[in-house]
Amino acid sequence: MIQIAIMGLGTVGTGVAKVVEENAEQIQHKLGEPLRVKTVLVRHLKDGPYRHLMTDDFQKIEADPEIRVVVETIGGVGAAYEYTKRALAAGKHVVTANKQLVAEKGCELLELAKAHDVSYLFEASVGGGIPVLHPLTQCMAANRIDEIYGILNGTTNYILTRMVRAGATFAEALAEAQAKGYAEADPTADVAGIDAGRKTCILADLAFGRQVDPEQVPMEGIAGLSLEDVKIARRAGYRVKLLGRALRLPEGGHTAYVAPHLISEENPISNVEDVFNAVMVRGNATGEVMFYGKGAGEMPTASACVADVMECLQASPRRQEIGWSDSTEGFQDPAELRTRHYFRIAGSLSDAAAAFGDVEVLSENGETAFLTDVISGQDAARLSGKLNVRACMRVLA
Amino acid sequence: MIQIAIMGLGTVGTGVAKVVEENAEQIQHKLGEPLRVKTVLVRHLKDGPYRHLMTDDFQKIEADPEIRVVVETIGGVGAAYEYTKRALAAGKHVVTANKQLVAEKGCELLELAKAHDVSYLFEASVGGGIPVLHPLTQCMAANRIDEIYGILNGTTNYILTRMVRAGATFAEALAEAQAKGYAEADPTADVAGIDAGRKTCILADLAFGRQVDPEQVPMEGIAGLSLEDVKIARRAGYRVKLLGRALRLPEGGHTAYVAPHLISEENPISNVEDVFNAVMVRGNATGEVMFYGKGAGEMPTASACVADVMECLQASPRRQEIGWSDSTEGFQDPAELRTRHYFRIAGSLSDAAAAFGDVEVLSENGETAFLTDVISGQDAARLSGKLNVRACMRVLA
Repeated sequence: MIQIAIMGLGTVGTGVAKVVEENAEQIQHKLGEPLRVKTVLVRHLKDGPYRHLMTDDFQKIEADPEIRVVVETIGGVGAAYEYTKRALAAGKHVVTANKQLVAEKGCELLELAKAHDVSYLFEASVGGGIPVLHPLTQCMAANRIDEIYGILNGTTNYILTRMVRAGATFAEALAEAQAKGYAEADPTADVAGIDAGRKTCILADLAFGRQVDPEQVPMEGIAGLSLEDVKIARRAGYRVKLLGRALRLPEGGHTAYVAPHLISEENPISNVEDVFNAVMVRGNATGEVMFYGKGAGEMPTASACVADVMECLQASPRRQEIGWSDSTEGFQDPAELRTRHYFRIAGSLSDAAAAFGDVEVLSENGETAFLTDVISGQDAARLSGKLNVRACMRVLA
Repeated sequence: MIQIAIMGLGTVGTGVAKVVEENAEQIQHKLGEPLRVKTVLVRHLKDGPYRHLMTDDFQKIEADPEIRVVVETIGGVGAAYEYTKRALAAGKHVVTANKQLVAEKGCELLELAKAHDVSYLFEASVGGGIPVLHPLTQCMAANRIDEIYGILNGTTNYILTRMVRAGATFAEALAEAQAKGYAEADPTADVAGIDAGRKTCILADLAFGRQVDPEQVPMEGIAGLSLEDVKIARRAGYRVKLLGRALRLPEGGHTAYVAPHLISEENPISNVEDVFNAVMVRGNATGEVMFYGKGAGEMPTASACVADVMECLQASPRRQEIGWSDSTEGFQDPAELRTRHYFRIAGSLSDAAAAFGDVEVLSENGETAFLTDVISGQDAARLSGKLNVRACMRVLA
């Protein structure tokens, strides 16, 4: 019998306990022995189906030699960070879905895990139940990873889908998402691109082998997005999606950012709708590979955590290939990245042409919407300086 | 320095040598030491860039203690089977892209690998460079896998795409695929669904933990597919795709088959075009997850082989969780599977209604095309017994 602990009994923590129970047969078959949740750490003891497993004292987990793996679903960097360090130092594997902690402290925690010959795994932190990090680090290990982009946040993708399909405004679609339970009462982390940004950092860390700090990465959300631009883009054969992007630059170094993009309908990621997520990874040998599924939810995310628990137990003593340097060297401002840009200006086509030369006009009715040639973000800002810009987005090539 | 051997120097074998050279830096960084191809087994010595590594004597590999991993890219079950057994017995890990060998002899070879405490890995055998088998067996390990379906053959998907987009007949589209190098001079294994069938068997073996023999699995290809049906389906909001499918049956047991299907345009797999492949996996916790990319080609397939080589070397002593029982128990005839069916008959709507009751008419012009309710394949055959059937396909729900 293998015993584990869960820290935090919110949506994901409860899901982990359920998956361990409901899929006990599959799990035992693969591990060769049963897996059991022995202890659940909560802040305040409360009634419920797991009452008999609860403790509010972390030492009960830390000092229990029977507990081999700890699943951290507390969230944030306060107690989660502290307890993760102590659990690793006590020689226990730690598994998490906590993207903020991995994005900010992952490098340090992986070093600590290495020093104590245990694993720190976090597949569930990106894409929920969609396998992304393992395929990236393991199945694509023989590749140089050149680019990753993805729809990494289901809440914002649901909002954008409603804006496109039902012609809803951002505010209407957000209210709808909240009514359906897809968006939190305080939707800031989702809507402002922070959630997608943390996931982008984790993907970039693994792809480039260097720390990409969330503070370095510009994160733009969808709160400022106008229905007008969604409609113009759609008529021109594009969808508007919030993308997290990380890529190697041709001049050397790498960059990462989160922003709404125009994506051609020909690109399969443009068809990813509702709360679904998708991550495209481009390797120099494999080419583009896409992973698609529900990026959140109790059971998908929990099942990814439990798979990581099984992985910790089977990889003896620890998974080798996951980790990155704490150096942030090589990170470049994404403003240097060259793409086509979409603009909507309060002005005429000749205003647009005066600033950018030849442009592709998408719409003219008092305002003018157009696509520029391939230019850097810096040039886009500089050349549009004298225009009355109502909207500006990059176009995914 | 870690030394490996390649058996067979066709497209994939040559690609493996190239990936090892071109991505030497990434590979060394992850392995901690350089990886080098020491020996290449060929049937006849010939000139070329790898001339200095060539041998036509398998014993040079078998008896070389420096060679830790052998990559088998010979294909088929003759020499490939023989040499794989001997390499495993000699304590070497073996990696392959050989779907025929894995589908027919995988269970035995995995047992042999286990007995000698080495790994037998074959990620490249399904989906080329798309990570599918590892995510299935590892990242989704905490799931009961309920269904897998996929576009598993790029050649036939290219042909179908051309039929839809350009209105080409099957014969025209096949000739085009051959001219572009996507189809072999003898395209039988692709066109008749055999290639997709072998991959379906491997997916089913891993998903259900039981041997699914290629001889048990009905394989229908696309040679009999008429442009007429493709057009009718498209007007009704469906695409025609060749799917390999493996699923647990509600009554117990499992089944697998390959056949063209009508797929709703709402299903993301309906948009998978050209030579791209996609595999959808449904787990009881994760829900539906899709893996998408180029399913064939020298570099993608080779990079999957090299990733497996790295995996063999890092998993000490061997990967545990891949394997299945040699029992074929539980396999059910897919004719029992209940789905909607598409029919085109030389007859009227009242002929259709007389046989099937209420049907959904898709087209009437001398012939009648319609969709039935959800019925078993057996019932579809029985009830249509007196009709003049021109075409019959299942509809993916």
